[in-house]
Amino acid sequence: MTETPAMLAARHAPLIADAIAAVETRRHWSPFRDSPSARFHAPGAPEAGRAAFNARLDRRFALDQPGITGWIGEEVSPYTRRPLGISYPQSDPAALIAAAAAALPGWAATPPEQRIALCAEMALRLYAVNFEMAHAVMQVTGQSFTQAFSGSGPNALDRGIEALAYAAKAMRDVTPEARWQRQFGAEDVVLAKQYRLVPRGIALVICCASFPTWNAYPAMFASLATGNPVIVKPHPIAVLPMAIAVAACRRTLADYGFDPDLVTLAVDTRAEPVARRFIDDPAVAIIDFTGSPAFGGELERSVTGKLLFTETAGLNAVVLAGAEDPAAVARAVARAACLYSAQMCTSPQNIYIPAGGIQTPAGPMRFDDVAAAIIAAIDEIADAPASAAGIMGAVQAEASCDIVRALEARAGQMPGARVLRRPRPYAHPDYPEARTMTPLVVAVPAGAEALYGAEHFGPVLFLIAADDAEAAIDEATTLGRRHGAISSYLYATDPALIDRAADAFAGAGMNLSINLTGAMWANFAAAYSDYHVTGLNPAGNACLADLAFVAGRFRIVQNRRPALPQDHAHAA
Amino acid sequence: MTETPAMLAARHAPLIADAIAAVETRRHWSPFRDSPSARFHAPGAPEAGRAAFNARLDRRFALDQPGITGWIGEEVSPYTRRPLGISYPQSDPAALIAAAAAALPGWAATPPEQRIALCAEMALRLYAVNFEMAHAVMQVTGQSFTQAFSGSGPNALDRGIEALAYAAKAMRDVTPEARWQRQFGAEDVVLAKQYRLVPRGIALVICCASFPTWNAYPAMFASLATGNPVIVKPHPIAVLPMAIAVAACRRTLADYGFDPDLVTLAVDTRAEPVARRFIDDPAVAIIDFTGSPAFGGELERSVTGKLLFTETAGLNAVVLAGAEDPAAVARAVARAACLYSAQMCTSPQNIYIPAGGIQTPAGPMRFDDVAAAIIAAIDEIADAPASAAGIMGAVQAEASCDIVRALEARAGQMPGARVLRRPRPYAHPDYPEARTMTPLVVAVPAGAEALYGAEHFGPVLFLIAADDAEAAIDEATTLGRRHGAISSYLYATDPALIDRAADAFAGAGMNLSINLTGAMWANFAAAYSDYHVTGLNPAGNACLADLAFVAGRFRIVQNRRPALPQDHAHAA
Repeated sequence: MTETPAMLAARHAPLIADAIAAVETRRHWSPFRDSPSARFHAPGAPEAGRAAFNARLDRRFALDQPGITGWIGEEVSPYTRRPLGISYPQSDPAALIAAAAAALPGWAATPPEQRIALCAEMALRLYAVNFEMAHAVMQVTGQSFTQAFSGSGPNALDRGIEALAYAAKAMRDVTPEARWQRQFGAEDVVLAKQYRLVPRGIALVICCASFPTWNAYPAMFASLATGNPVIVKPHPIAVLPMAIAVAACRRTLADYGFDPDLVTLAVDTRAEPVARRFIDDPAVAIIDFTGSPAFGGELERSVTGKLLFTETAGLNAVVLAGAEDPAAVARAVARAACLYSAQMCTSPQNIYIPAGGIQTPAGPMRFDDVAAAIIAAIDEIADAPASAAGIMGAVQAEASCDIVRALEARAGQMPGARVLRRPRPYAHPDYPEARTMTPLVVAVPAGAEALYGAEHFGPVLFLIAADDAEAAIDEATTLGRRHGAISSYLYATDPALIDRAADAFAGAGMNLSINLTGAMWANFAAAYSDYHVTGLNPAGNACLADLAFVAGRFRIVQNRRPALPQDHAHAA
Repeated sequence: MTETPAMLAARHAPLIADAIAAVETRRHWSPFRDSPSARFHAPGAPEAGRAAFNARLDRRFALDQPGITGWIGEEVSPYTRRPLGISYPQSDPAALIAAAAAALPGWAATPPEQRIALCAEMALRLYAVNFEMAHAVMQVTGQSFTQAFSGSGPNALDRGIEALAYAAKAMRDVTPEARWQRQFGAEDVVLAKQYRLVPRGIALVICCASFPTWNAYPAMFASLATGNPVIVKPHPIAVLPMAIAVAACRRTLADYGFDPDLVTLAVDTRAEPVARRFIDDPAVAIIDFTGSPAFGGELERSVTGKLLFTETAGLNAVVLAGAEDPAAVARAVARAACLYSAQMCTSPQNIYIPAGGIQTPAGPMRFDDVAAAIIAAIDEIADAPASAAGIMGAVQAEASCDIVRALEARAGQMPGARVLRRPRPYAHPDYPEARTMTPLVVAVPAGAEALYGAEHFGPVLFLIAADDAEAAIDEATTLGRRHGAISSYLYATDPALIDRAADAFAGAGMNLSINLTGAMWANFAAAYSDYHVTGLNPAGNACLADLAFVAGRFRIVQNRRPALPQDHAHAA
């Protein structure tokens, strides 16, 4: 017997209930395993995933969507430096918009719980092909295989299901009908009212190059669940993960009798970007953007009359005032700075260390000793090819390497700045051609904002000699207000200082991780528990995920009429 | 013993709980009586209210707020045509913004439940002075005393408490803290997380001239409850109600030890409007606007980087396809058209009647007979001074009378248009000088959009000879999509037609009232039950009230740190 959408909704209801409980308690939960270890997965799954990925190479990516005018693709692996050779259907934007508009009424009329369940099903199916996805993400972004498997797989799908939880909460908050009774003078007025949830229109999801799925899934699911068709615009150098995702969504929709054109892919090239065609179209009512502060800021300053959700980037700081275990803190900072070669929106860049040293149980630890400990921890990662490969992966774009090299040159000419560690490559054990770069580390005096006062997208750490911890907090929050910040970090032993810092970072609208060391990456953000991006500083206006991320994606339209006599009786 | 904010929060908790139950069930509920009948109110309350209002006249309105540079006031009563003689403190916008910014941190640090309770207390105190408020609203807007008492009093306060209910729901949805535990490899990571609700910034509330309190209270309370200071910018011809409201809010805040500058009044004149000074200030993060489509549209097209909530106006239609009781329907249409001389955002303007007549139990009723019935029902109201005064009140601005007179002249020159009823004044029993105007009624052929294809702010009804009911629905929804619509009305006996109409109006994002006759005004919108404005057409982008009206007014900032050992034990 074929599973109907209603049966699917019943099947996934417990999953959504669990997700709602998770976001309300903010406790750890996930329906997925985020380790690629073979013992968590079906026999043969890793091999099948690799084979599926390999079968994608050097051919057209089959996607039967409307308005195809040609085939394009310009992805190059940062590991092999060779083109993937995959071409994707390029559709006329007008055709994609028309197809989405045509699909909208049927989707809008679908019960919300079924739409939510369809999205949950998409997530589960994407989890089922996660080994393939991991290879795809790895080869277009440069993420390590492990990180691509977890961060761009289950962790990203969790963000999507988290958005579903909020969509369910927001939509369930609207009763579909009511009986309203009130006396007007001598007359007893009894009305039957109906409240319909109506989608806003077509939703555009613009994905970033380095971590495409993580922001895309919540945006796609939030819009789809609330009834809005979605057009996915991947970055032209990182199409494959989103093509796989769009294909899975389309197949899921079709399998349950829905119009697959509810999810389409808008591929473009760097030379001929196509996003504006969608952004400016009146039928596009929702835009989710992840990417550069330049384009994101332009959208934030120009888009009106549409919902706009952005995540761009920030200037993430570590204030290192004290440590119970300095070696553990140095390791945590080094790991966070090395992870994916600092190409994450949560990667720290500016490390404030009091010029007079940090507090430790063994007494003050000098600035240079702290710096040496951090560099030693970086070297420990960088000098072991297997750990370097697993943590740093590859650098997606040569431009990032150029940025870091230019910073090194500028640091060499700046009085007071000291290059403590050069940004040398490491030899990837599997991919000798991989574009790799281990972190540049520069010690700078406070005030050298010409070097560290902006975000540099690439592996670089500035160790800033702050007057003291208070000055460090002050400057980190000042720069965060000005340039944005997504993740901030504090290491301190003084409880009063920690309290003051928590207030100061909150006052600047900056999330703060305090004294995180050990097995968990300090810059790991857990779906269902960690709110990602506050919306209070220039790093973005949207949060993954809160009610505000979904509540505006649908509207309510009502009608009311005199209740029939039987309604009177029923309600009595 | 002085009541503390915490005690206040405990005292008002049941009120908020009831309000939340009301918005969730959408059943009738109100903590207030909306009739001015003496039996519902304390002895002497009506007289005290009148005396309080009279004592306001011809003097300065005492409001001890920052930056006062002068005293201005240009209100004229539409009933007496004489200036009220009240002058209000004009404050330097920069001083109001600075004062609000200075008040923000203390308010942001106040527990949300206390902020909500403070707003509830403001509402209750405003209810306690509602007789005074009714006179104030009446004399600046032209509303009848009864309507000013109910519509601008309890009904408006209910809208405010409704917004508080949503603010409570949205803020309570964020747990203040969590304990998060997860295995990473062999390590059991246990984190303590804190989630703070952080206001966006200063909120500006721009009020309309004709019904200032109704939209202002929900906007003010939604922003205040979520931690944002509020600057109220009343329309210069209708300041007094908002001055009374702001004074009450300030007194409430001060009584409980809070900074009264959390609520201030920004008075201006028509000659020198001041709204832009606030709109363009970076410290202003939220704008609630009620007023003209021209200014509202300008804001919708230009404001970026801030939350903007608008309600402007629409082209409200009645589709009259059939009636069980044609006289009752004619009365309902006439009453809705006469209420406050059609100066309400819910007033109908375009009445579609099939040229071939409407369906009734006695067979088809001809277009001209339907028209005659509506006009007879209008005359019944207009010709009895007491009912005219109670229903129509006065016309606030001479411009509205000019609009209607110009329409009459144009209709006289348009082939096929017939002026069926001239817009004559009625003699107000208490105010011989009152600016009154009973509705102009013009019969027009379908397609005469040069006359009826835009909103005319004044008492005018177009009876449009539609080809049939389907054509009427089609045109009403087409014009609604183009010009916006806030309330739409259908009278029909054919259930299949009603279903089709419900779908068509929902498809156009238009709320629909079906077959409403009798004691309740067809254009009465009930707080806690009727969603007001869909946000899906040009009549406004915000809804009173839903989660989206409040969910974005605050943001979430978190911190996380290793849990202390005792936290492990507690949670086990």
